Amino acid sequence: MGAALAHALLKAKVSTVVWNRTRQRAEAQAAAGARIAPTAEAAVRDADLVLGVLRDGNVTRAVLEPIPEDAFRTSTIVNFATSTPHAARKEAGWAAERRMSWLSGAIMVPTPLVGQPDSLFLYSGERAPFDIHADVLKVLGGDARHVGTDHGLASLLDTGMLELFFAGMTGFLHATAMVTAQGLKATDFLPFAETMVDILPASLAGLARDVDAGTYPGTEDNLAMELAALGHIVDTSDDIGLDGRFPRVMRDLAAAAVDSGHGGHGWSRIIEQLRKPA
Amino acid sequence: MGAALAHALLKAKVSTVVWNRTRQRAEAQAAAGARIAPTAEAAVRDADLVLGVLRDGNVTRAVLEPIPEDAFRTSTIVNFATSTPHAARKEAGWAAERRMSWLSGAIMVPTPLVGQPDSLFLYSGERAPFDIHADVLKVLGGDARHVGTDHGLASLLDTGMLELFFAGMTGFLHATAMVTAQGLKATDFLPFAETMVDILPASLAGLARDVDAGTYPGTEDNLAMELAALGHIVDTSDDIGLDGRFPRVMRDLAAAAVDSGHGGHGWSRIIEQLRKPA
Ligand SMILES: NC(=O)c1ccc[n+]([C@@H]2O[C@H](COP(=O)([O-])OP(=O)(O)OC[C@H]3O[C@@H](n4cnc5c(N)ncnc54)[C@H](OP(=O)(O)O)[C@@H]3O)[C@@H](O)[C@H]2O)c1
Ligand SMILES: NC(=O)c1ccc[n+]([C@@H]2O[C@H](COP(=O)([O-])OP(=O)(O)OC[C@H]3O[C@@H](n4cnc5c(N)ncnc54)[C@H](OP(=O)(O)O)[C@@H]3O)[C@@H](O)[C@H]2O)c1
Repeated sequence: MGAALAHALLKAKVSTVVWNRTRQRAEAQAAAGARIAPTAEAAVRDADLVLGVLRDGNVTRAVLEPIPEDAFRTSTIVNFATSTPHAARKEAGWAAERRMSWLSGAIMVPTPLVGQPDSLFLYSGERAPFDIHADVLKVLGGDARHVGTDHGLASLLDTGMLELFFAGMTGFLHATAMVTAQGLKATDFLPFAETMVDILPASLAGLARDVDAGTYPGTEDNLAMELAALGHIVDTSDDIGLDGRFPRVMRDLAAAAVDSGHGGHGWSRIIEQLRKPA
Repeated sequence: MGAALAHALLKAKVSTVVWNRTRQRAEAQAAAGARIAPTAEAAVRDADLVLGVLRDGNVTRAVLEPIPEDAFRTSTIVNFATSTPHAARKEAGWAAERRMSWLSGAIMVPTPLVGQPDSLFLYSGERAPFDIHADVLKVLGGDARHVGTDHGLASLLDTGMLELFFAGMTGFLHATAMVTAQGLKATDFLPFAETMVDILPASLAGLARDVDAGTYPGTEDNLAMELAALGHIVDTSDDIGLDGRFPRVMRDLAAAAVDSGHGGHGWSRIIEQLRKPA
């Protein structure tokens, strides 16, 4: 990811210094016009903008910790290492103690989409450094959004978005395991799966509306009917002998809501189940 | 659902007889032009096409069982009660013993979309009765598809599609529980969630390709990185005190694959985990 960011900057003729623990891995960037710094300190000293793209927050802190505070006088640091909101806030707190200008970033695209005009990058923390550096940040991903001053927000939205993405991919694979066990090919099932993805945005909008209103009317769906459908999914998985934990969690959430008397409510009511520790 | 089907038929001027255990609930259809049959037997005798839209397969069988075989001589029965593929095959076997012409149907739309030209209805079983009745079946849902002779197939595809749909809705609600716990509104999160739904079809196509090939190259993703991301989701859920079973199942599937030495493979490798009983 660090290489992808550097290449996007170089392509946009932004003067770029790179540092990597394993120097050879920085050499491709040097060939493309970057200057290789011999140490992390040399890389950050006198920089305008420092992009941290290390494995995680602990590595980022371990690399920055030994560098004297005055090296960061002129720069804003963007920490792109993926983390939890809690950890992002802790790291920002550490940076604040050292009087560093710090943004918490989240890269929402894979490496091949870095540098594209509609690629989404999230930033949280103070608004001013984001505004000052917006032009360069937009080189990395054109859809650069400041999502709030709470340093946890970029990572929070990242985490939530990824969960939805993994849920879709896992639901598809479990369904595909059922379907392929009965002789169909995954690519036969794909167009049927796609029709479900097509109707998802309208359904999610309905769920969001209910959650914000705190009411779960269930005019077009109801948990009793949905519990029956989820029971069929679990039974089908069991009949075939698959790992049924994924559909079972959803079935159990629906069953608990129905048992508490919410069989006439809509699926949005499940958020109340999720808000209680299991 | 029975009322919705009857209304679509009446709107298309198809001569329609209705029967319901609770007679009053059929009266709206009578007002719209249907004839009410006094008994189930009277409803099916001399019909061309019988649509069973009862609560489940057991109810359907209990209603049809006492009716003499000869009452079904002229008709094809479509069983629209939702079930598992296994149960659909058993019911079709029972019907075959009684020499009934039988189709196993699955209605893939909610009641307001019945009768629309692009509404998806699935049918499995013999092809001939489907072809004979295709014009009337297309009145119910214009996208009427015969998916195979195995009676389990309509229900199998239904089950798989619903699983993907519930996965998306549950992933969204758990993510929304995280996000709203930190002060955002669900409708603030919605546009971010939608960007994930947008990229899902391309990702599912990649998963399907890998599953059919039986290889899980992971060129643009890898399970080690995905395990770290899923760990962040579980930790965020735990930090907030939510029911974390849903992300935990996904995290555990990824962890088992990485532990078995597949950290360099793509997410598609998870299908091999799912194919082993938990
Ligand atoms: N790749 C993506 O699609 C993507 C998308 C969004 C976010 N991210 C995030 O971006 C960050 C970087 O990801 P990545 O994909 O480039 O791979 P990665 O394996 O997560 O990060 C590797 C980088 O961290 C360095 N590193 C690891 N341990 C170190 C240590 N103890 N001291 C100093 N440097 C150390 C590596 O240096 P060496 O070369 O010397 O090993 C390398 O530069 C991660 O937080 C990731 O979650 C990645
Ligand atoms: N609604 C949808 O969006 C939808 C979508 C796809 C598939 N389906 C499937 O369509 C079928 C019907 O669904 P539904 O939504 O109409 O509601 P439902 O509650 O599942 O079915 C109610 C119907 O079953 C009858 N019934 C129940 N127990 C009976 C018994 N012991 N003897 C005789 N009749 C009995 C009811 O008669 P009474 O009026 O006398 O109670 C009523 O006609 C279900 O299998 C459902 O899974 C529904």
